[in-house]
Amino acid sequence: MKLLDSFGPNPRLVRMFMAEKGIELPTEQIDLLGGENRQKSYTERNPGGQMPALELDDGSLLAETTTICEYLEEKYPTPAIIGNTAENRAQSRMWVRRIELNITEHIYNGFRYAEGLDLFKDRLYCIPEAADGLKAKARDQLQWLDGLLAGKDYIGGDSVGLADMILYCCLDFAQGVGQPIEPSLQNVNAWFARMDARPSAAASLHANSEAVGMKG
Amino acid sequence: MKLLDSFGPNPRLVRMFMAEKGIELPTEQIDLLGGENRQKSYTERNPGGQMPALELDDGSLLAETTTICEYLEEKYPTPAIIGNTAENRAQSRMWVRRIELNITEHIYNGFRYAEGLDLFKDRLYCIPEAADGLKAKARDQLQWLDGLLAGKDYIGGDSVGLADMILYCCLDFAQGVGQPIEPSLQNVNAWFARMDARPSAAASLHANSEAVGMKG
Repeated sequence: MKLLDSFGPNPRLVRMFMAEKGIELPTEQIDLLGGENRQKSYTERNPGGQMPALELDDGSLLAETTTICEYLEEKYPTPAIIGNTAENRAQSRMWVRRIELNITEHIYNGFRYAEGLDLFKDRLYCIPEAADGLKAKARDQLQWLDGLLAGKDYIGGDSVGLADMILYCCLDFAQGVGQPIEPSLQNVNAWFARMDARPSAAASLHANSEAVGMKG
Repeated sequence: MKLLDSFGPNPRLVRMFMAEKGIELPTEQIDLLGGENRQKSYTERNPGGQMPALELDDGSLLAETTTICEYLEEKYPTPAIIGNTAENRAQSRMWVRRIELNITEHIYNGFRYAEGLDLFKDRLYCIPEAADGLKAKARDQLQWLDGLLAGKDYIGGDSVGLADMILYCCLDFAQGVGQPIEPSLQNVNAWFARMDARPSAAASLHANSEAVGMKG
C-alpha cells in the first residue's frame, strides 16, 4: 500500500490516525495547489478528485478519509481506535458522522466558498452566498458539542477516537483561515488543547504547511 | 433490539436496508411531526435528536443511519451488503461518503432551509439563503454521477449497495418536495427505475407516508 499525500487537513487526518496506530506506509506527494488531483490521470482512478487516497496492493485507489481509516483499522487492528467490538465500532461511527455532517463539512465548505474560493471555484461547484451561514452553523453546532463534552476527555468518552481526530485536524486548519474556536467554548477549547498535546498532532504536520501558510 | 421509527426518508433507508437483508425487528413509532424526537427524554438518549435510532439490548440508543446499517451488517452478516472483505467494505464506504457529502446532504439541507423551514426552524440552525445553492450543487453532483453510472447497474458496480439505498430514499423523497431528477440524466433515471422496482423499495414505505404528503 502507498498513501497519496499532500498538505491540507484531510491528508493530515489520515497521517494522524496512522501515527496513533503506529502505521508507517510509503507516501507519494501530489501537487494539490497545482491541481494534479484534478487531472484526468488522477480522476480516472479517484473520480472524487480529492486528497488523500490510498493505493491498494492491486493498484486501485481507495478514497475518502474515514473510509481509508476504516480500511487501515481492518488491516492493522491493534491498537483499536475505531473499536474492537461491534458496539464500540458503532459508537465511534456514530460520532464520526455527527461531527462530519454537523460541523466539519460546514467549516470546510464555508472555507471553500469564501477564503478558498479562488482555489476551488474551478474545481467544485461553489456557493459563495452560503459561506457565512455555513460558518455560523458550524459555530452553533460547536456550542452544542461544548455541552456534550462536559466532564469528558474525548468526544466518545475516555479514549481518543476517529471523531476527535477529524474535528481536531479541521479546527486546527480552520483557525488559520478565519474560523477560530470561540473563547467561550470552554470544553471545546480544553479538548482542543488535549488533542494538540498528543504526539500524533505534531507527527502529522506536513512538511509544506509553513510554505503555504496553513497549519496542517 | 428495537428500531425507533417514523416517517421520513432516513428511517426508510434503515427499513430498506433491513428488507434487503431480511432482518425483522420490533419497532416503536416516534411522533416526528409532534417533535417527540426533540424532547429531552429523547435527546438525553440521542443528543443528535434525529430519527431513526436503534435501541440496543443494553437500552442505549444508536443513532445515525449509516452507523445503524453498519451495526446491523455486523450482527447479521448474511447476505452481505456493505461487504464481506475489507476491500469490498472499503469500496462500499467510499461510495456512501461520496453520495452523502456530495449529494444527499445538500438535498436534505436544501429542503430543510426552504420547503421544510417551518418544521425545522426551531429545531435546527437553518440557512435559508443557502437553500437554492445547495439544491443546485446537488444537481451538479448528480450530473457527475450520471457520467459515472454509464454501463453500471448500481453505484458501486454490479450489485446493490448501501450508497444506492441512501441515494434512492433521498431522491424518492426529493421528487415530492420540488427537487425532481433532471430528465436529461439518463443513467441516473435508469438507475432510479431499477431501484424503484426492487421489492425493498415498496416494503420500506411507511404507513403514514400518504397522510403527511411525502412518499417515504
